[in-house]
Amino acid sequence: MKAVGIVVEYNPFHNGHYYHVTQSKSITNADVVIAVMSGPFLQRGEPALVSKWHRTKMALANGVDLVVELPYVFSTANAPMFAEGAIFLLDSLKCDVFAFGSEEGKIEPFLNTFNLIEEHFEEYNGLIKKFVSTGISYPQSLYYAYEHLKQKKHQTYIDLSKPNNILGYHYIAAAKKYNLSIQPVTIQRVQANYHDSVNKASSIASATGIRRELFQKGTIHAISAYVPQSTFNELAEWQQQYKHFVDWEAFWPLLRYAIMRYRPESLTAFADVSEGIEYALIKHAKQSENFSQFMSGIKSKRYTWTRLQRMLTHIFTGITKEELHQFKTPSYIRLLGMTKKGQAYLSEHKKQFELPLISRVAQAKDSMLQIDIRASEIYALGVEYYSNKKIDGDYQTPPIRL
Amino acid sequence: MKAVGIVVEYNPFHNGHYYHVTQSKSITNADVVIAVMSGPFLQRGEPALVSKWHRTKMALANGVDLVVELPYVFSTANAPMFAEGAIFLLDSLKCDVFAFGSEEGKIEPFLNTFNLIEEHFEEYNGLIKKFVSTGISYPQSLYYAYEHLKQKKHQTYIDLSKPNNILGYHYIAAAKKYNLSIQPVTIQRVQANYHDSVNKASSIASATGIRRELFQKGTIHAISAYVPQSTFNELAEWQQQYKHFVDWEAFWPLLRYAIMRYRPESLTAFADVSEGIEYALIKHAKQSENFSQFMSGIKSKRYTWTRLQRMLTHIFTGITKEELHQFKTPSYIRLLGMTKKGQAYLSEHKKQFELPLISRVAQAKDSMLQIDIRASEIYALGVEYYSNKKIDGDYQTPPIRL
Repeated sequence: MKAVGIVVEYNPFHNGHYYHVTQSKSITNADVVIAVMSGPFLQRGEPALVSKWHRTKMALANGVDLVVELPYVFSTANAPMFAEGAIFLLDSLKCDVFAFGSEEGKIEPFLNTFNLIEEHFEEYNGLIKKFVSTGISYPQSLYYAYEHLKQKKHQTYIDLSKPNNILGYHYIAAAKKYNLSIQPVTIQRVQANYHDSVNKASSIASATGIRRELFQKGTIHAISAYVPQSTFNELAEWQQQYKHFVDWEAFWPLLRYAIMRYRPESLTAFADVSEGIEYALIKHAKQSENFSQFMSGIKSKRYTWTRLQRMLTHIFTGITKEELHQFKTPSYIRLLGMTKKGQAYLSEHKKQFELPLISRVAQAKDSMLQIDIRASEIYALGVEYYSNKKIDGDYQTPPIRL
Repeated sequence: MKAVGIVVEYNPFHNGHYYHVTQSKSITNADVVIAVMSGPFLQRGEPALVSKWHRTKMALANGVDLVVELPYVFSTANAPMFAEGAIFLLDSLKCDVFAFGSEEGKIEPFLNTFNLIEEHFEEYNGLIKKFVSTGISYPQSLYYAYEHLKQKKHQTYIDLSKPNNILGYHYIAAAKKYNLSIQPVTIQRVQANYHDSVNKASSIASATGIRRELFQKGTIHAISAYVPQSTFNELAEWQQQYKHFVDWEAFWPLLRYAIMRYRPESLTAFADVSEGIEYALIKHAKQSENFSQFMSGIKSKRYTWTRLQRMLTHIFTGITKEELHQFKTPSYIRLLGMTKKGQAYLSEHKKQFELPLISRVAQAKDSMLQIDIRASEIYALGVEYYSNKKIDGDYQTPPIRL
């Protein structure tokens, strides 16, 4: 059986994702689709709308055969680390190819960009550092350095200002870095851009747009045109159980308490908290009534929204820099769910896996997995506090079978 | 003007305290009574029923002329450190004497006990260590060692199993340790013992008994016979504003979150958390629905209830061992309230004070004071979360004048 791997967050699963799953499978002639999915905390530094179990069900109902958790250490990291964790896992799962959505739609420009940067790596890094030292944000500096490099050779390159292209680039870089045999394929994204709002005329909207609609309209009917029925059902079930969807506003009281427990110096134990932002975090936590007021207080040119949210994710979960930075690559395959076909794939291939396959966390002593469990338990606690309803811990939930 | 100093928690102020205040004043022929009072967290490792401002009002309405805050570093410490902070402050405030309630009622047995232990200090400590090493709790070991010492010389000694005698002993030891000129006086306690329940026949009950009645009956009318009218009024005001009185049950959701954010190794950053109790704390925080269930889970012979609660106080406020243990004696006099007479005393004596007198915390950079502010803010946050009602921060509240 041939498997194609994809890297996903499914927050929530929508029609665009469905297109990506089916295209990935048909283009690569794969028998099964394996998704590496972020757990409760996502790459942009946000808690997921609904639990990973609900999101796993959405995936399995829509063409994904196997869902594996991207450990917290990678799921909340910057693009390179995120990509390395995900691609390494897909390779460990013996996928021949991985397929990612991109604005580009062709793989050559990605390879050209990768080679260009690889060949001029020192110059590239030097340029970035120079730009950063002038006070320009990191992503912006990276963009300028890249624009400069592109003058070197006349080829087609990717546009590195597009979030999905950045991820794609890092997926390819990750495979090269670890000499993995897994090969890249890219799928042309349709219609919606990453940050686009819901487009009423189309049945495809970005996850960002869908979340915005959900929170603004407060009803899942507002987004029913953009998601499969199974997503609608999972969201409806969540809403019935836990009142509303998870965002930082819902977790704000606990996040605020977590920040206020620290003196500024101690807050620097968390990744990216440095250079004085620790004082702003405490000052504005004291003053702010809600998360959006807090973010307006701490936002400055120096820090991107994503970088700030990632700091807050780590403060919220209590996972320190020291804990995060001890790891390079995943040390286990954590199974969240599977279809019958996914199960058949596992039976056929699991002896070839170089990482242990974990379906019950109760036995696990792995320190990377301990972090995942803590993150899931803190997420569950947050939901329990705002909804007054218990949510099953990671220990209690077995992989989902569909 | 002559001042007598007293060390208090007033949780809440009751008729026995009133007796102590008036007796302290008359026995010592003092013009004013100065109370060093714990802030929001108390020596037995508990949050106070109501804010320090409410408790200050109770004191000023009942014969206390000046209320000064015992910094968190001392108010949540073991008896020796607690006593050192309090007596050092009273001496800094130029009190000639301090008066404490005791079961004994005479000062000689205290001085005999102090001299006995002083003279056989090494033997005493050696005995304690020996007992502790057999698994006996620290307070119990201390008691056995003392019983052994008492055989040395035929004199009247205090009974060191009584909490108020222990404190009295440490007050005297503190004055000797720092060569303070302040002199001790003791007042015979009447009727209620420290841990006694409310005694219906009498108008004096212990604070512990009063709190128990308050929580069990859920109405302040249950305790009206045992407290002055002003205490009743302050409690009534608090209840109206913040629904119920503060105890660990009210703070449990936040305390639970605070514990669960840590991996066991990191919890040892808090005072007294060591020797494996960190694993029990996390395990039972996950499992317990409420504070009392949690305490049943973690309680063992090795740890007294008080010691466990003190650990929890520090975890709740986020104040680490490293922060706590950098101090020896108070570095400021934090004024919480005063009567006109108290104010006159301040005008007359403040030039002699060796410590800065602080009435507005906004200006203060002192690191000991920063801890007090953080503790008060976390207490206020806890109240705000369970009551859905804002409570003024330490910055907003000026000293109370009566």
